[in-house]
Order: sequence, then structure tokens, then C-alpha cells
Amino acid sequence: MSEYDVVIIGAGVIGLSTAYHIKSRHPASRVLVVDKFNAAGQGSTAKSMSAFRCLFSSKVNYLLSDSSVDFYTYVQNCLGVDLKLTFVGYLWLLSEKEYGEMRPILKGLAANNLKYEEYEVEVLAKKLYLNARLAGDEEAEVLGLNDVYKGVFIPKAGIVDADSVAKFYEEEFLRLGGEIRYGVKVEGFIVEPCKPLGIPGEPFFWQEARVSGVKTSVGVINAKKTVLAAGAWIPQLLDAVGIECFIKPKKRQVFAVEAKKLELKRLLYTEGFNPVGCMPFTILPRPRVLIRPFPTESVFWLSYADDFPRAFRLEEDPQPEKNFYEYGIYQVLVKYFPQFRDCHPYSAFAGLYEINTLDGHPVVFEENDLIVVGGASGSGIMKADAIGRIAAALYDGEEYAVLYGGRKFKVSDLSIRERHVERENLQI
Amino acid sequence: MSEYDVVIIGAGVIGLSTAYHIKSRHPASRVLVVDKFNAAGQGSTAKSMSAFRCLFSSKVNYLLSDSSVDFYTYVQNCLGVDLKLTFVGYLWLLSEKEYGEMRPILKGLAANNLKYEEYEVEVLAKKLYLNARLAGDEEAEVLGLNDVYKGVFIPKAGIVDADSVAKFYEEEFLRLGGEIRYGVKVEGFIVEPCKPLGIPGEPFFWQEARVSGVKTSVGVINAKKTVLAAGAWIPQLLDAVGIECFIKPKKRQVFAVEAKKLELKRLLYTEGFNPVGCMPFTILPRPRVLIRPFPTESVFWLSYADDFPRAFRLEEDPQPEKNFYEYGIYQVLVKYFPQFRDCHPYSAFAGLYEINTLDGHPVVFEENDLIVVGGASGSGIMKADAIGRIAAALYDGEEYAVLYGGRKFKVSDLSIRERHVERENLQI
Repeated sequence: MSEYDVVIIGAGVIGLSTAYHIKSRHPASRVLVVDKFNAAGQGSTAKSMSAFRCLFSSKVNYLLSDSSVDFYTYVQNCLGVDLKLTFVGYLWLLSEKEYGEMRPILKGLAANNLKYEEYEVEVLAKKLYLNARLAGDEEAEVLGLNDVYKGVFIPKAGIVDADSVAKFYEEEFLRLGGEIRYGVKVEGFIVEPCKPLGIPGEPFFWQEARVSGVKTSVGVINAKKTVLAAGAWIPQLLDAVGIECFIKPKKRQVFAVEAKKLELKRLLYTEGFNPVGCMPFTILPRPRVLIRPFPTESVFWLSYADDFPRAFRLEEDPQPEKNFYEYGIYQVLVKYFPQFRDCHPYSAFAGLYEINTLDGHPVVFEENDLIVVGGASGSGIMKADAIGRIAAALYDGEEYAVLYGGRKFKVSDLSIRERHVERENLQI
Repeated sequence: MSEYDVVIIGAGVIGLSTAYHIKSRHPASRVLVVDKFNAAGQGSTAKSMSAFRCLFSSKVNYLLSDSSVDFYTYVQNCLGVDLKLTFVGYLWLLSEKEYGEMRPILKGLAANNLKYEEYEVEVLAKKLYLNARLAGDEEAEVLGLNDVYKGVFIPKAGIVDADSVAKFYEEEFLRLGGEIRYGVKVEGFIVEPCKPLGIPGEPFFWQEARVSGVKTSVGVINAKKTVLAAGAWIPQLLDAVGIECFIKPKKRQVFAVEAKKLELKRLLYTEGFNPVGCMPFTILPRPRVLIRPFPTESVFWLSYADDFPRAFRLEEDPQPEKNFYEYGIYQVLVKYFPQFRDCHPYSAFAGLYEINTLDGHPVVFEENDLIVVGGASGSGIMKADAIGRIAAALYDGEEYAVLYGGRKFKVSDLSIRERHVERENLQI
């Protein structure tokens, strides 16, 4: 088989955005995407909560998200592609301590044009039938829950359809002449010397070596440049060639509860936060249980991103755990929103985060003709466009990427060797 | 079984130094060391090159090594324990480019009392029968080798017997009443809620949880504090509870060549560098093939620490690879030291480095009653005493550890959260 200019591993939203941006800069180049699944975005992209927020403590994360969301807005409003992008907003319910931690972050972002509104707890209690005062509740005390002290509402945030975003990039990439091969599992990299001598056993350590393609379930695919965008599978593939990426896989679970009861319907379709008349994506005080409204389906998605002792573990088919909802999420949820009393999920799913354990930012770097794009740490959908543009700029050896809207981004800031990011304090 | 105050996983040199220093501060505490092998230092400690150098680009690494070597010197000279510590020195053979990189590091360390001598290449060529000029040699060009431009000799460096160091700590620890159980394989951690409620499935994510001991091949061992000092096995055990340590395992190989030929004997017993009349531990220009003299056995140990594409991989019984010597080390070695022409190893061994991929320094940190001590990145023997003292200070919640000789060290500088070290540029 002849050599491709680029082979991209992973047809998730990050891989497809990268493929599209590389191909659109190089219409004549042969760019191939491979994925073990049989369609676009069937891995962790499909298991995402599909929400977005232009709120991060780090300026880099904010910029990645803000410019990507601007692009998705343009795609939906100007190109007429329905991404189901809906600005329902994010509502952070904060304990007094959390509010104290959040304030300086908000002040900093406000200077960067971020709009937000603060809500008094009495107003929220009335609007959402929120139970904000838990002091004195013995169960809440055992659960370690705190009173809601204040709410912070972010209007530039909301929900989107991850599948539609992945398919948008797929279609555009194919339209430009990009190639995709589904059902192809990558087993490892081909490593060859830069200057082959024809001696068996090459490369030896005194030879410069490079990644020259991938070994797959359907044979070897050679490429001038290999792009690894396989999400949670990135570290496993990189370990085999001794490259560190600071990414760890971790299971994340989402439980879907129907808004059957009147009180739940009333909660889901709360008016006054946004033009669609829907409750915002809501974050409870620590432990931060997440409520993602799904108004078109009359459903809530409930989740929690657990830390210790949840394993860093790669699983081919991660499963949601019944007890994680029953003894975990439900117990916390029902204290703040008694509307959920006796409500159990009718379905659930689990995917893998690809967590950057260094600083909570994506990595985009190149070593030995291998470009690594990943580590979005649970916010890949909302940053995919910017990440793809940065990867494409790296592919072209450019110092700066131009993100949607014209803002410039120094490519090496997301590298490993010359990394330059602040630690993210608002990971959820 | 009753609860131990401390259980330490790993009876390598780092685990035993830690055990000794904790026990010597707490003679009345029950401190247990467990190891899967049947004696002290049988893991990567036994597979080490057993050399030391008080030369690192980072002040932290220098201090860890310098104070540990001072302690070993005291043990051997004042306590009369033979650690086979011999100051043969380190000789770095540097290309012009490498010399340029090394100079500022040496100047910086000289201000910190480091003594070193520069050698002109002609002097070295005469003393060691070194072939310093490779320009024009076609094979050397293919190998990418450069002329030796200068030599830098570090007197405070040399060889030691890793086994004797491990056994010293073992004996002292046992003498103080410490307990060791060999042949016990740790399978994982016990995680329990800090405030148990007696509900099956605890801990739930809203509960604070802690490591309360280890599951082993001989049953559960409970402890108030668990210390993980299992070298290259650290990341595997930590992944299972979702704690990041920035350590990766990597195979390292050592090949033993006898000094049979007269020219090799003459090289091994080169006079003039040190009082024992032995060649120094010698580092060739890049790629940095290492020569470790073993004068009492009339042997050279040869090694090379390869990077890409050598895998990060955990292996129960890593094996040396014949071709790694024949097509790798030998080819480079014989260009600079033609005395090795036609010399092949009579034995070889392989172990695992526990590489800290963040900055090349050890990690010493505590999370949830679990203390992690490791990541010495191939220089564990020469830093083990300092690392053990820092871990013991962390166990006691002290801000500073006092290293041998009285120098103070801020414990959190080796932590993950408040880490404060410069990147190490002299890893070999």
C-alpha cells in the first residue's frame, strides 16, 4: 500500500476536527482517519455529557472552549448545520467556601469579557424549588453536604450534540477528499530508522528513528506523519514506544432519569434562565453532582466525576454501576432537589475520560513524526475545534495557530517540552 | 491480625532506608516491610549498576546524592560496615557540543563546593588508550559518533555494592525491632472510609476515604500508614486507586565483559585517576554508553539507557537482549576503546528503572494515608539515604527533613502538589 501523507488514529471529535483542519489546509494531501468502530464518534465522544461552558480558571482552557463554541455557533447559525447547540447556561451552586474560591476566578475572567450573574440563594430556592439549607439535616451531615450559599450563572454555556459535532467534521473532511476507514483497530506503531541501513533489527539506539505508520488489524499503513487522537487509548499506545503524555484513562458514568413527575417537569422546564425555558446545566456544591438537562427528550442526565479511589483503568466497554447512582448520586441529589425522590434511571452509560494529570489541559505535541492530540480531560467536545486547529498548525510547523474568531495561540504552549499553562482549578 | 503502625511495600534500597529511618524515629512503633522476593534488595536494586556520582544539574538531586554518599562513607569508615564503596570517580568524555552544555552546570556546582578536573583529550588518549578522534571514520559517521573534545573528572563519585547497602539498612532496621516478611506479594490496597458507616459498598464518593493497608498473597495487612516503595511497580499499584505519581517503568540492561586481554586489564587498572588504581566510571559521548569498572572481579559492566522507542513496560523478569550489546553498545564502545574489539559479554542482566517523567527527581508524597516513595530514575542507590530521611520526615508531618551532615531539605519539594525542583539535565 502506498504511503499516506497523514494517518490519524481515532475518529472521535478530536481526531475528526484535527483531520478536517489538516485536510482543509492541504487539499491535495492524502489524509486517512482510522477507527476501530464502524462510524464517527462512537468511542468516548458518544459517552460524553455533551455540554459546554466558556468558564475555566485557566486562560488557555477558556480560550480553547470560547473559540470552539464560537465556531460551533457559526456552523449552526450561518452554515445551517444543526448541532443542537443550545445556550441553556451553567448554574454553579456554591457553598460559602466554594464561592470564596470561585470569586477571584470570575473577577479575572470578567476582565476578559466573561459575562456571569450571581444569584441569591432565596431566588434560586424559589425558581428551582431548591433545598438550599441543609444545616440540621442529619443525613446531609453524614453525606458531608453544605448549604448552598450563592449561585453563579454563566450564559455562554449549555448543551450540544456530540454526535452532530463529530459528524459535521466527518462530512466536511470527506467532502474535501479525506479518507476514513472504519473497523480498523490500531495495534501499534511502526518505528523505522530515519536513514535505514537495511540491517535486520533496525533501528538501533545510535540511529535516529521515527514513527512511520501503524500496524492495524488489516495490515500496515505507512504515513509521513502519524497523528494519535485515540483519547483514553493514547497512553497505552505511547507506552509501547516510551513516550510520556501525562494522560490517564478514567471511567465516567452518566445516568438518565425521565422527567415524568410534575415536579421534575417543572424543574426541567424552569423559565427565566435562558430563552429556551429550560433549567441550566447545574453543578451542586461539593461533591459536585452534575445535572445536565435534556429538554427535547424530557430527561435529566446525572453524573459525578469521582476521584480517589476510582482507578485509572482502560476498559474496552466500561459499564455504569447501579450503586454509583443509588448510593452515590441519588443520595446527594435528593437533598438539594427533593423532586428526585424515588426517581431511578431508566438508562445509563459510561465512557472514559482521558485525563491530563499534569494540569488539566490538552496536550498537542510532536515527537519523531508522531503528533499526539489528546488529554482534554472531559472537556473535549467543547474544545475540539481549537484543538484541531492547533494540531494542524503543529503539523505545518507554525509557531502560532489562529483559532476561530482570529485569536492567536502559541502552539508550543500545549506541548510537553515547552508547556506553558496555568493549572486548571475548575475541572468537573 | 492486629493493625501495624506502618506497612512498607518493597524491601529494595529505598523501602529499607525508609523503614530504617521511620523505625529509628519511632522505636516503639510496629513497622513491617513486605516484599515478594525472599531477601532484601532482590528486585531492581540487585539489577543496578551500583555506581554513584555527586554530579547532577539540579541542586536537589545533587543534595540527595551528596548527603547519601556522605552517609555511606560514614557507615563504611566509622561504623566499619563494608559497603564496597570506592571513589573511583566518574569520567565524562564529552564532544565539543556536550562540553558546551556541561560547562555552565559545572560552574554552578563548583560554587557549591563540587570539585572536578578537566582533562585535555591528548592526556586521556595517552592514559586510557582512548581513540578520541573519529572524524573520517566511515563507520563512526554512520553511528553518528563525535570526537571526544574534553574529559571532565568528578572525584566524588564511584562504585558501591547495592546489595551491601540494602543489607545494611535491613540489619539496622531488624536490630531496632522492625519486622520483615519476605515472599509476600502485594495485590492491592485496602481502601476504607475514614468514618465507616457499616453500609456494604463503602466508601461512597461522598465519604472521605483512606488506604488502610494492603491485600497480599498471604491475606490482608492493616496499617495506620501504608508506604509504597515498590520501585517500577509503584504506578501499577497507584493506578488501581487513581493516584498519579508520574513514574514509568523501563528496562535497563547491563552486560559484563571480562578484562581477559592485556589491553583490557591495562584499561581497567589505569593508574592516576584515583588511589585504587582503576579506571573511573566512564561515560562516552552521545549516545552515552556507560563503562562501570569492577576491579575486584576484573570485569567491566557496560550499559546504555535507551530512550525512544524503548517501551515503558512492567515485566516480572526482564531479560537482557543479545543484539542490544552486539549491534548497540559494542559498535559504539569499540570505536572509542578499540581494546574491546571482539570482546563479548560472559553474562548480562536487566532490571527496571522507575523513571520520573516529570523532572527526573524522586517523588515523596502522601495521599489518603498512603505515602509514596520512588521515581529515583536510575539513581536510587546513591540517593536512598536522603530519600528515606525525607519519607520519614513526611511520616512525622515535619516541614523539613535533616539530611546526613545536617543539611535541611523541604519535604514538600518532592511532593506532587507543591513540587519544587529544577528539571534534571544530567540523567544517564
